[in-house]
Amino acid sequence: KKSFRVVILPGDGIGPEVVAEATKVLEAVAAASTDIDLQLESHDFGGCAIDKHGVALPDSTLQACKEADAILMGSIGGPKWGVNSKIRPEQGLLTLRKALGLYANIRPANFASDSLLDNSPLKPAIAQGVDIIVVRELIGGVYFGARKESGVAPDEDTAWDTMIYSVSEIQRITRVAAQIALAAHPPLPIHSIDKANVLATSRLWRKVVTETLEVEYPQLKLDHHLVDSASMLIVASPRKLNGVILTENLFGDILSDESSVIPGSLGLLPSASLAGAPSVADYKSANFKATPGIYEPIHGSAPDIAGKGIANPIGTILSAAMLLRYSLGLDIPARAIENAVRVVLDNEDKGGHGLRTADLGGNLSTKVMGAKIVEVL
Amino acid sequence: KKSFRVVILPGDGIGPEVVAEATKVLEAVAAASTDIDLQLESHDFGGCAIDKHGVALPDSTLQACKEADAILMGSIGGPKWGVNSKIRPEQGLLTLRKALGLYANIRPANFASDSLLDNSPLKPAIAQGVDIIVVRELIGGVYFGARKESGVAPDEDTAWDTMIYSVSEIQRITRVAAQIALAAHPPLPIHSIDKANVLATSRLWRKVVTETLEVEYPQLKLDHHLVDSASMLIVASPRKLNGVILTENLFGDILSDESSVIPGSLGLLPSASLAGAPSVADYKSANFKATPGIYEPIHGSAPDIAGKGIANPIGTILSAAMLLRYSLGLDIPARAIENAVRVVLDNEDKGGHGLRTADLGGNLSTKVMGAKIVEVL
Ligand SMILES: CC(C)[C@H](C(=O)O)[C@@H](O)C(=O)O
Ligand SMILES: CC(C)[C@H](C(=O)O)[C@@H](O)C(=O)O
Repeated sequence: KKSFRVVILPGDGIGPEVVAEATKVLEAVAAASTDIDLQLESHDFGGCAIDKHGVALPDSTLQACKEADAILMGSIGGPKWGVNSKIRPEQGLLTLRKALGLYANIRPANFASDSLLDNSPLKPAIAQGVDIIVVRELIGGVYFGARKESGVAPDEDTAWDTMIYSVSEIQRITRVAAQIALAAHPPLPIHSIDKANVLATSRLWRKVVTETLEVEYPQLKLDHHLVDSASMLIVASPRKLNGVILTENLFGDILSDESSVIPGSLGLLPSASLAGAPSVADYKSANFKATPGIYEPIHGSAPDIAGKGIANPIGTILSAAMLLRYSLGLDIPARAIENAVRVVLDNEDKGGHGLRTADLGGNLSTKVMGAKIVEVL
Repeated sequence: KKSFRVVILPGDGIGPEVVAEATKVLEAVAAASTDIDLQLESHDFGGCAIDKHGVALPDSTLQACKEADAILMGSIGGPKWGVNSKIRPEQGLLTLRKALGLYANIRPANFASDSLLDNSPLKPAIAQGVDIIVVRELIGGVYFGARKESGVAPDEDTAWDTMIYSVSEIQRITRVAAQIALAAHPPLPIHSIDKANVLATSRLWRKVVTETLEVEYPQLKLDHHLVDSASMLIVASPRKLNGVILTENLFGDILSDESSVIPGSLGLLPSASLAGAPSVADYKSANFKATPGIYEPIHGSAPDIAGKGIANPIGTILSAAMLLRYSLGLDIPARAIENAVRVVLDNEDKGGHGLRTADLGGNLSTKVMGAKIVEVL
């Protein structure tokens, strides 16, 4: 029996509630399997860690994360630890990403079920069939370059940040995008996004992406878009970007959030942040090594509904599916979870509607939604 | 009689065709007025200037622009002078912006007529009533900071760009946003967009915007959004950003393009780039000075339809209206033009549809659309 260590970081607000349901799903997968075993352990991270330990990322949590095969996170932050606090949950997140070398952020934007088209802010004719996976570089660029705050000499009236990229940083994220494109049948096209008409980093980005794919993955289709033009396409004709969007840290932050509202509820969408290309070797093979990663829903900690038991657990449950697929090489149970979510959303309740939590206009509780998905599974 | 010098830069592709119609509109305004006189003169700029003079921005054009009270531009660029060319039209544009000190880019995104709601990619319930003016800082930030290309020592494998802002750069663009907010009755709220949870420039941005408005314009409402969250709001509930969006150069490039697709046709939208706050004093007052600026439609040169006489001239005609208002202090004729555009779009033709060019599913030519607007005027 192959054993995997999975660290759980419930976090703040609705985090613990949604993580509880995703944990049940993971336990159900392990219980049904004769050859894998999941060891789940929970640690403090985020605002709750600031309250308990005085820091967002306690050493013990960091250590556990370093030793884990994969990490499942809820959500962190809240008004209690706002922009004006000295110690902020987000800093812990940026430190954790960097410490674990999680350079690849992966965010699908698609309809978990066609029955959700109504919830999109886009007209059905525009939204139908949108199926985008954003692959964002996560530990480079202007997030981690040198910077100077105002109020600091020399030139106290000026602040600056450095957007910086090296050839190898661009190569490795390009390879992750390529692996993800190749995992689909037929392989997905890659849309690389930059601002090469202005930025030196973008000119390097375009060159390295082009060369890496030409040499190592000549079978993949590649095109380039300027970031301003891509931000229009995502609204006006998002299907033109179906496939993999490959981009740097800041553009990825903006474009992944923009595309995530197409499916109509942030509560539905998962994400992964990986320290390498997804595991393709089968987990049973002798040389299999898990790809470490953090998996989390894209929604925030939603303090307004925390504790009410009405948050949508689907984003976290689909994150658990990504965890199985990308970190542990378990594609079959990952698909089973995605399928169970679809079945629950498609199934009509007595009123003729799919089963829905409050964010989608329904009245299922977090727990009942989780239980329904485990049941189908 | 007060005389103004207006430089016309027709540019490339459909530029000359749409500018011709806007010129007719300006001439009609001048003809109808007993106290103003417009001196229009045309100059080469963009790809056509590269072909004729070897540079995108010839000295004579730059000189004329420096002496002008305002500049009306068509559009520049095309595949002939693409990303791989050594001399590119966009470089001329960036040089011109910097040389004229055009630090304030103003781009409204609204429905010229409610009859256009059908063209939006957003559902009518989401798009209806969207009325956003983006005020973008245009000659600072990462566009004009120091940068290093890859292939250059030291560290040939690395490229970097610097995002940099000073207190005074942020103050002056904040004042432009405030003037524009105050020109409406009641004054518009200001939504400042940054990434203050990551960038030093954004923390300075947030501080200076807050202080400048508190001290100089305490009557204006201000809120702050992170750029990732703003890019979601623009799609999911854009009315929440109704009013003035105030942001730095790169975020403004992305968000203004994103919001510009809400009204459904890029052909409809104007823009202004100003070297100061809009003229508020009446042009008749003794101390009136024009605010220099470039006015242009937001669409590109559309080489695919160039020469066919079917481009939509409305974006350029509305740019001419902005020129009268912001550079020349002529608000009344500006409104008359905007009203004429609305009347033409609202008026039903025999088939029961408003009058439309091809981009909006109609069959009016560029010339006939221009003539109809002049006629109503
Ligand atoms: C919290 C913040 C620093 C973070 C980012 O910008 O990366 C968030 O927006 C995200 O996308 O995970
Ligand atoms: C052509 C390009 C350099 C320019 C910019 O990024 O400013 C354009 O996108 C714009 O918004 O006017």
